[in-house]
Amino acid sequence: MKKIPVLLMGCGGVGRHLLQHIVSCRSLHAKMGVHIRVIGVCDSKSLVAPMDVLKEELNDELLSEVCLIKSTGSALSKLGALGGYRVVHDSELSTETEEIAKLLGKSTGLAVVDCSASMETIEILMKAVDLGCCIVLANKKPVTSTLEHYDKLALHPRFIRHESTVGAGLPVIASLNRIISSGDPVHRIVGSLSVTLGYVMSELEDGKPLSQVVQAAKKLGYTEPDPRDDLGGMDVARKGLILARLLGKRIIMDSIKIESLYPEEMGPGLMSVDDFLHNGIVKLDQNIEERVKKASSKGCVLRYVCVIEGSSVQVGIREVSKDSPLGRLRGSDNIVEIYSRCYKEQPLVIQGAGAGNDTTAAGVLADIIDLQDLFH
Amino acid sequence: MKKIPVLLMGCGGVGRHLLQHIVSCRSLHAKMGVHIRVIGVCDSKSLVAPMDVLKEELNDELLSEVCLIKSTGSALSKLGALGGYRVVHDSELSTETEEIAKLLGKSTGLAVVDCSASMETIEILMKAVDLGCCIVLANKKPVTSTLEHYDKLALHPRFIRHESTVGAGLPVIASLNRIISSGDPVHRIVGSLSVTLGYVMSELEDGKPLSQVVQAAKKLGYTEPDPRDDLGGMDVARKGLILARLLGKRIIMDSIKIESLYPEEMGPGLMSVDDFLHNGIVKLDQNIEERVKKASSKGCVLRYVCVIEGSSVQVGIREVSKDSPLGRLRGSDNIVEIYSRCYKEQPLVIQGAGAGNDTTAAGVLADIIDLQDLFH
Repeated sequence: MKKIPVLLMGCGGVGRHLLQHIVSCRSLHAKMGVHIRVIGVCDSKSLVAPMDVLKEELNDELLSEVCLIKSTGSALSKLGALGGYRVVHDSELSTETEEIAKLLGKSTGLAVVDCSASMETIEILMKAVDLGCCIVLANKKPVTSTLEHYDKLALHPRFIRHESTVGAGLPVIASLNRIISSGDPVHRIVGSLSVTLGYVMSELEDGKPLSQVVQAAKKLGYTEPDPRDDLGGMDVARKGLILARLLGKRIIMDSIKIESLYPEEMGPGLMSVDDFLHNGIVKLDQNIEERVKKASSKGCVLRYVCVIEGSSVQVGIREVSKDSPLGRLRGSDNIVEIYSRCYKEQPLVIQGAGAGNDTTAAGVLADIIDLQDLFH
Repeated sequence: MKKIPVLLMGCGGVGRHLLQHIVSCRSLHAKMGVHIRVIGVCDSKSLVAPMDVLKEELNDELLSEVCLIKSTGSALSKLGALGGYRVVHDSELSTETEEIAKLLGKSTGLAVVDCSASMETIEILMKAVDLGCCIVLANKKPVTSTLEHYDKLALHPRFIRHESTVGAGLPVIASLNRIISSGDPVHRIVGSLSVTLGYVMSELEDGKPLSQVVQAAKKLGYTEPDPRDDLGGMDVARKGLILARLLGKRIIMDSIKIESLYPEEMGPGLMSVDDFLHNGIVKLDQNIEERVKKASSKGCVLRYVCVIEGSSVQVGIREVSKDSPLGRLRGSDNIVEIYSRCYKEQPLVIQGAGAGNDTTAAGVLADIIDLQDLFH
């Protein structure tokens, strides 16, 4: 049985689902000859680990307990006394995590899995790379940080996996890596990579005003608490940057041209969420309506996409043919079109659910299992 | 630099393109820290290998020479005297191949790559598995043979890759393996996996008679020399079987219900190709035309698909909604829809060019590179 030791950072939404998947896949993975040995779980304040990470693991009973606690929104520090493990807090958290990476990284191998949404995991991830660990990310921030950070994380390309940073569990990065390693040059990638903006853009086609569509999306739970976090395009830009860097492009966030759906004067610092939703956004309706009509007269619809081509990544509204896969996109699907030598006139298209903790965690788990040949 | 020794069986269309890709990717792969060491190339009659497979490899000059010879349709045995290698023929072919697998399999690892379309490679592949080699297939036949053969080939699932047996280079199997390893249960797969039948079915929508569409497809070079090899559905059934077996279903070819587009009395044994194309197929026009019309009245079009669901694989014509990804399929694209827990109402869709030696060979090369962590 091949053992993959895992240290999980972030056990809220995606991380919690990952733990559930790991526990429920025990017999499946045993049949595959693999065992995921969870030797540590962290939230932002605490780390839970067995007494001896070399010999022991967190058992499934404890992992289920962690899931239960996190599903109520509580902190790991609330973990009751099941015994057989230790909990360290605050200042000890990072030294202890590093200690574990030191102990396991080169001896048995260790996959450090980041399911947080934090900017602050980058330091421990960089140390983990130095210590010979593998890195698995659902967190987009480490791979969209500076080029120095990126180069360090991607130093050993086989040791880093981050499928779930783009399109949830959709096999976008795995597919792109296959195209790259086969020497098929990628000319262009076009993606609708935001479930929120995918919904908003397709609803606009029916002639509804932008303000009404965004308010409905918020009610349906499709948006961030502040919908401007979606409408600003930053999340799409991060995903575009990740794909562009896979293609070897030396790009940073600041060099990406992002078309925000709201103007600066309606930004979070200047206008409350309520004010934006009730007074701000209605002022944007007319302009968008005109763009929808103009596109429609050409047989097109509007889509909010990232376009990677040459040395540039652009993020914003594009007119696309009603009859293209992108133009026909509906619901909570993401879609990615990849154009290359092999996929020249007609792109390689990957489409499916682009959000959800279950799907995102499934992508992380597939990444972990795919590391198995690197472990003893 | 990680070295992946490769023994290639079959250097016609796909195999020749693979050798070209390997040579043209040298600097790309060097950057990735990988070197593909070609230590043998076979066609059905001969094997070309370096004098000492442990220390030497076939150099790029020789590989280019092999490509040149095969592109003219000649046999490997016509290889001129460039020196530094040996050529063995006929009866010695299989013993020498086995000898190489013995020498390399357990010492340095060896990827035995089957780009032939032969039923006869199965014996050497089975021996190669026993000798610790990895297996990479573009050839569908070994994995659609008996369950005994299949179980042997898939004994170590990480040691066998066969992406290019379904949908050319499309990342169908890689994606499906990710879904499987993440414990996401696949309920249903629907695929249009024949470029020929994809073309034929979409052309029928415009009201053209079947006979005319098939004759046009043959002229365009979309069909096998005998178009009944496509119209019979056997090739689609093989692909369906491969996907079903990945899902763990214990299925053999004989248990697949295949709807042939021509009746038994028009089969190859009873009617010549010419007779079929000029007198036979016209008799099928009316029935198909009626089915097209009936589907159209329900907002549907006909597609020739494989459907994997429960314990069955079915292959034949289905009515699908005009507005579904399948219904909108055009040209030489294949499409696969995967329904699972994560992709429930809306499937995961993978679409793109489903044929072509270049694309198929790119898929094989990506498979080879993906084995790298198994090699020293």
